[in-house]
Amino acid sequence: MSDEEIIDKSVEKSQESRVETNHVSDSLTLLLYLGLLIVTLLTVWLFKHHRLRYIHETGLAVIYGLLVGAIIRYGSQPSEFSVRRFNATGSLPGSDALPPEKVLVTMLEIGDNNQSRVYEYDYKRRLYGNEVRSPILDEKATFNPEVFFNIILPPIIFCAGYSMKRKHFFRNIGAILTLAFIGTTISCVVVGSLVYGITRLSTGIGSSILFNECLLFGALISATDPVTVLAIFNDLNVDVDLYALVFGESVLNDAVAIVLSQSIEKYGALAASAGGIQGEAILKAVLSFLGVFFGALGISSAMGCLTALITKYTRVRDHPLLESSLFILMSYSTFLAAEAARSTGIVAVLFCGICQAHYTYNNLSRESKESTKNFFELLNFLAENFTFLYIGVSTFTYSSHLWDPVFIFAAFVAILLGRALNVYPLCLLLNLGRRNRIGANKMHMLMFSGLRGAIAFALAIRNTSSSVRKMMLSTTLLIVIATVLLCGSLTTQMLQWLRIRVGVEEEAPKRNYEDIQSGSEAEIAMASAANRGSNRAWFARSWHGLDNRLLKPLLTHARPLLTETCPRCCLPLAQLLTTDEQLTQASVQRDLIADNLDDAPPEDEASTSSTGPAAGGNFNDFGGLANPAGPGQQNVVVRADLGGSNV
Amino acid sequence: MSDEEIIDKSVEKSQESRVETNHVSDSLTLLLYLGLLIVTLLTVWLFKHHRLRYIHETGLAVIYGLLVGAIIRYGSQPSEFSVRRFNATGSLPGSDALPPEKVLVTMLEIGDNNQSRVYEYDYKRRLYGNEVRSPILDEKATFNPEVFFNIILPPIIFCAGYSMKRKHFFRNIGAILTLAFIGTTISCVVVGSLVYGITRLSTGIGSSILFNECLLFGALISATDPVTVLAIFNDLNVDVDLYALVFGESVLNDAVAIVLSQSIEKYGALAASAGGIQGEAILKAVLSFLGVFFGALGISSAMGCLTALITKYTRVRDHPLLESSLFILMSYSTFLAAEAARSTGIVAVLFCGICQAHYTYNNLSRESKESTKNFFELLNFLAENFTFLYIGVSTFTYSSHLWDPVFIFAAFVAILLGRALNVYPLCLLLNLGRRNRIGANKMHMLMFSGLRGAIAFALAIRNTSSSVRKMMLSTTLLIVIATVLLCGSLTTQMLQWLRIRVGVEEEAPKRNYEDIQSGSEAEIAMASAANRGSNRAWFARSWHGLDNRLLKPLLTHARPLLTETCPRCCLPLAQLLTTDEQLTQASVQRDLIADNLDDAPPEDEASTSSTGPAAGGNFNDFGGLANPAGPGQQNVVVRADLGGSNV
Repeated sequence: MSDEEIIDKSVEKSQESRVETNHVSDSLTLLLYLGLLIVTLLTVWLFKHHRLRYIHETGLAVIYGLLVGAIIRYGSQPSEFSVRRFNATGSLPGSDALPPEKVLVTMLEIGDNNQSRVYEYDYKRRLYGNEVRSPILDEKATFNPEVFFNIILPPIIFCAGYSMKRKHFFRNIGAILTLAFIGTTISCVVVGSLVYGITRLSTGIGSSILFNECLLFGALISATDPVTVLAIFNDLNVDVDLYALVFGESVLNDAVAIVLSQSIEKYGALAASAGGIQGEAILKAVLSFLGVFFGALGISSAMGCLTALITKYTRVRDHPLLESSLFILMSYSTFLAAEAARSTGIVAVLFCGICQAHYTYNNLSRESKESTKNFFELLNFLAENFTFLYIGVSTFTYSSHLWDPVFIFAAFVAILLGRALNVYPLCLLLNLGRRNRIGANKMHMLMFSGLRGAIAFALAIRNTSSSVRKMMLSTTLLIVIATVLLCGSLTTQMLQWLRIRVGVEEEAPKRNYEDIQSGSEAEIAMASAANRGSNRAWFARSWHGLDNRLLKPLLTHARPLLTETCPRCCLPLAQLLTTDEQLTQASVQRDLIADNLDDAPPEDEASTSSTGPAAGGNFNDFGGLANPAGPGQQNVVVRADLGGSNV
Repeated sequence: MSDEEIIDKSVEKSQESRVETNHVSDSLTLLLYLGLLIVTLLTVWLFKHHRLRYIHETGLAVIYGLLVGAIIRYGSQPSEFSVRRFNATGSLPGSDALPPEKVLVTMLEIGDNNQSRVYEYDYKRRLYGNEVRSPILDEKATFNPEVFFNIILPPIIFCAGYSMKRKHFFRNIGAILTLAFIGTTISCVVVGSLVYGITRLSTGIGSSILFNECLLFGALISATDPVTVLAIFNDLNVDVDLYALVFGESVLNDAVAIVLSQSIEKYGALAASAGGIQGEAILKAVLSFLGVFFGALGISSAMGCLTALITKYTRVRDHPLLESSLFILMSYSTFLAAEAARSTGIVAVLFCGICQAHYTYNNLSRESKESTKNFFELLNFLAENFTFLYIGVSTFTYSSHLWDPVFIFAAFVAILLGRALNVYPLCLLLNLGRRNRIGANKMHMLMFSGLRGAIAFALAIRNTSSSVRKMMLSTTLLIVIATVLLCGSLTTQMLQWLRIRVGVEEEAPKRNYEDIQSGSEAEIAMASAANRGSNRAWFARSWHGLDNRLLKPLLTHARPLLTETCPRCCLPLAQLLTTDEQLTQASVQRDLIADNLDDAPPEDEASTSSTGPAAGGNFNDFGGLANPAGPGQQNVVVRADLGGSNV
């Protein structure tokens, strides 16, 4: 072995031991998070066991995170990196003013043989102000937002769609859409303007913020996440319509806030440039908003329908493991496809969840129904608690916080007012057209449910390159922690003060009858009768018709047959698309319905509008083999059990 | 806004669009892999549906991966990065000869205001030879081995332990341990020496390989992975002892190969330095091997027992979601704890899986049993297929392959001979002490089952810094692909040629009786009777006693009570550690046993040595509520179903 080789080996050895040290510290960091999660779970269990309900698991996760974050920050010496500094020149305009994506460093050995080695470096970030001069610290506990957005968040959002109680959601779809679309926009504009106005009065960092940056903050902080409130609603069986409103609004306003903040980021600077507000840029922003939103909707329905078709027309259900894997892969592909198409994966995966629950779920084998439900429930639970833990820890470990008291004050005032100007006027407006009116106490509860959580945090941490962005992240962290801890612990009292009914049983308990009759001719007849008499909106009516007569028969094994509902000219195609299951199911169902119709009264309008997997009428489920209630309904049971069934 | 700020914003905007482009291409790459997995699954389903068994899903994954890898390599233009080069000096000895971990680049603007911006860069790797001069290409499809080792591999290995058929495994424990420990060491030394010998004859890159590097190659290539063979064994119900031998050897030799390669990496150079072989370094290597191995064993049993104790003594089972999450978190913590302690996580997670199945599984609620089993099965299936897909794709997309024909030839010859010198002599030796002898046809089958797979690949890709390491990776890829495709497709014919019995039913079908009697006084009596008569090894006998009299009563709700088995002095402690479940269970069980003993003959020795979760005698399971067979046994059913129950 030559001298050169010996030196080479020795450098390689030192480098290897450095890599190993890094690996050990990575493992320790992850272990810290897992340990915290385990402690959180055990505490949650203790609380539940002793029937304490002051605090939800996410609140606990935040508190433990804060504690450990503080210990890491003040108790440990952050390790420094070895750093070399180089200078380069570049000129604008031109791409050489951009930071190069890679840097190659040639190390020349000072010695006899003037050996040189070349190392490759990857671009990480731009450094600002103080960071340039201070040593670069090891920030293990604060990790990559890309991982967060692409790995942690999708299962949470998918699960929200997959386990949704679709029946009540669709019954209140008008109010939910209004609150989510118009409400979030109102909140965004109000928060943006107020923050802009108040910060003008100060002289701190906050005063340098531009109007479009305020709007961006308004958009990202408008995403509500009342996970603690919903958990308590579930435990106490709060009024189902209130539940649907709070849940539906929070899920959809996440989507709206994400798309809104993307559009503002792209066109906000343009719209607010040159002193005034430019119409063209605003139009572009609106178009971009619509493009991204409907793009995500399109991709998710396409992927959802494709999964439904595959599970319907192949016998992949004979192999549940293959089937479940296919289901999971197709769902995650929806996220990636939307991201690759420069739309938004989070919105796509939400609608994909709804679509999979509404169609594909019915085609799955019993085992796959169980295992996909369990799989996503577990992932959701772990990811959600991890997120709040992470919020707690990074509040202390993130080293470039920027706290501007005026901005923080402005933000808190603005979100309160923004929420109020969103909830109350819109609810009053909605009440004009609703039979089942939203009472004042429910409005207060909606107002109260405006907690901020994972999405607001994720949007804020996505980009922390400038000082204004850093200030936004710090403020968002404060808001999330304050609302989660405060609102989370006051929910039960709030329900009492507002005299909101708890312990409400589902008004029309499920009868066997409902499982059987849906999708049958009997239902169609009743549904149209109900529709004629009801004041349901045109949109909901026509959707219901399309869903029952075309989509369900096409995508699932549900009745009626396509051959019965389609026009005569398409009959051959319809016959081709009807499976044997659908045909054999028909006669059995008809008999059962005949038996049942005598002793069961016709369902009210609500139940015929049910679009749950149960109503899909998968015959294999009918015999009571497994959960006939679908992932949404089933989830309620599990959650209720989790959330303290021992009340 | 000042000029400076405008320039700043414009640079930031370009940088943001660059980040976005990167994100889109990342999403596309991942989407490609998911798409490939989906296609693989659908093809697998088609094959199963039409009862073709020429090829296993992992073989299919490799083939699809190769196809797509070739398309990426030859069909697409790899994008280049923008690169800046800098020079630096350093002198040995001293840490400034090591590459700095971070590089800061200050970009000076050539213009009116001489503005500067500072960017941070992270160390990636050292470049060798040609790489220094050629442009740096985008290697998206070839990803981080850290992700592979820390995320993809642990669920596969855990699942192997968790779903193991422990009964047959423990019955053949002596043979398995011999083949795994002594066999793998033989194989490592034989392969290393042969490769070293043959490469001396050539003049290519291979000839510069050192003896310790050959040994390292011998260690990493000795990890077998007969997943395709085992799947077919399962489908065809091959002789259970042969199954246990092939499975047990492959699982444990992974562990041995991992630890062996670590020890060789650390002490190999030392041991082979200065021309000769140094005794001290070899001793150190052996000690390091033992330390790492027993370290992993200790950590995994500690964590496994802790999980068992938590699930036994708290009522966390009232909340299945909490319980399953706890189970998953504790299991993954075992991996991280071992890695953080500089032991080996893969070995720890394997034993953790066995321990969790043996003790904790019995304490879980019915829902958690189901959901953890499904969860790990799904993760395992996805991770395994992904791995083989990735092996296929990266064969083409990895750009620094080094193919040395002599080395490749040497490697193929060496692994054949190494396997033969491992299997045949050891089996002959084992036959001297075995009642149930290993026939010649089974030896041939064991020889044939020496496929290489995920672990060999993972060990090879872990470090590709030098040219010898690159050559090892390239050769390992070839060996994996060749053995998976060749042996995978020939297994069925091989079984016919060797006249190995297929369609063997479990010799003693499970009776209700077995579920009840285990753990009872009746069993203890019978077991000791059987032990007296049997020629079971001292180790297995004393382990069985300890397990039944102390560990199971302590860690699970199984009988006999600790108060019955422990010495008189520890009685108060034993009473404290006995749960109400154990006490109430006792009387019911006794009655049932009395009922059953009359009409059920005593089990043979094999079944009393069963240590499966079923034998653990969790009373809640006994009523036939759920799978009383534990994760291992249950898994067999699922696998058989998957692997073509329609034979």
